[in-house]
Amino acid sequence: MKISELSERSGIPVATLKFYIREGMLPRGEATSATSAEYDETHLDRLRLIGALAGVRGLPLVRVRDILDLIDAPLDSPSETAHLAVNALPPYAEIPAPLDGDDDDRRARAAIALAGLTYDPSYAAVRQLDTAIRAVEDAGLPWDEPTLRRYSDAVGELATLEVVPIAALTRAEATTYGILGTALYEPVILALRRLALHHLLLTGQVPTPSDAGTEETAPA
Amino acid sequence: MKISELSERSGIPVATLKFYIREGMLPRGEATSATSAEYDETHLDRLRLIGALAGVRGLPLVRVRDILDLIDAPLDSPSETAHLAVNALPPYAEIPAPLDGDDDDRRARAAIALAGLTYDPSYAAVRQLDTAIRAVEDAGLPWDEPTLRRYSDAVGELATLEVVPIAALTRAEATTYGILGTALYEPVILALRRLALHHLLLTGQVPTPSDAGTEETAPA
Repeated sequence: MKISELSERSGIPVATLKFYIREGMLPRGEATSATSAEYDETHLDRLRLIGALAGVRGLPLVRVRDILDLIDAPLDSPSETAHLAVNALPPYAEIPAPLDGDDDDRRARAAIALAGLTYDPSYAAVRQLDTAIRAVEDAGLPWDEPTLRRYSDAVGELATLEVVPIAALTRAEATTYGILGTALYEPVILALRRLALHHLLLTGQVPTPSDAGTEETAPA
Repeated sequence: MKISELSERSGIPVATLKFYIREGMLPRGEATSATSAEYDETHLDRLRLIGALAGVRGLPLVRVRDILDLIDAPLDSPSETAHLAVNALPPYAEIPAPLDGDDDDRRARAAIALAGLTYDPSYAAVRQLDTAIRAVEDAGLPWDEPTLRRYSDAVGELATLEVVPIAALTRAEATTYGILGTALYEPVILALRRLALHHLLLTGQVPTPSDAGTEETAPA
């Protein structure tokens, strides 16, 4: 198909398609003359993928390009490829310095040791975990060993199941699955958790809070 | 303490503190004269909470204010309160229309039925799940019944454990726990999953991809 049809079928303006091509995010079509090129279903697939990463995950285009680059030309080391892919995912924001000036990653280190995971300080998720734990603590939410185990056990079992399908994939498919699966199952997990919590609330399966504190609302 | 000391101890400029007070995000101090007021540890706690929501979760201030409002004055219905709290969490972005013009929530409806959860179309997480599934599909990742069960089982068990501590809380604490726990354990879950996947990769516990597809890289 011509670029005008690709635009029509994808709903993406021609100017944007040309931008994607210039940025190397969308492969060039096969040239049919000096001024026109032919596009096919693989281009539509790629546009759907860009839409999933940019639209749904809300990734900035420069991060989408990083991820597409990793898919198109993964590094020899799957572990390095995973590193780079996770670095392309939020949170990117410069984390504000903590109030107490404590900016090492001791919270993450302790959690990783307890959960039996690998501590690799160059991996972005270590810093992400440390920041996430600090936020939980700053909000006055529980963060003790049973709480950590609740999350690390559930997530560890899930991750073990998530890598099983890799055995049936080719090496190239496995890389794509690893990179995109990390990014795109995350919103599924969060939405399902919000629905599960809401379901427990609606169906009355949430334990009744103790009444010890209701008196505090009595004096007006 | 005076506002200058609150600023020093929190690391937040006085002008920002005054903005938080004007916006109702930080309670006024106790007036000690016409021009000065006294602040205490509860103000520092509140600033830590704002930092957790704005800095770590990266929520826009208007959403932080929505969440603080819910904590300060929850609705009578815990379910309505949960609705509003989830609406204050990302993803907020207008989701781009899907390429095929299919904009109902049938994917989420099917998933919710299979997972045995409650379908309540007014709840933001239904739309979030639908969009998340569409992104998975658009990226060419698996989304079949076993895949759904992998996520819904893991998340359902986790959610059931997450509500257990509520029994030991007062009603006001339970509301705060519900609202903040939904928002602030999410980054913990994502970081732990990234670490668990990376750990499996580093320790060689990821199944070897089939070699069927390696030949495709041979012709140069």
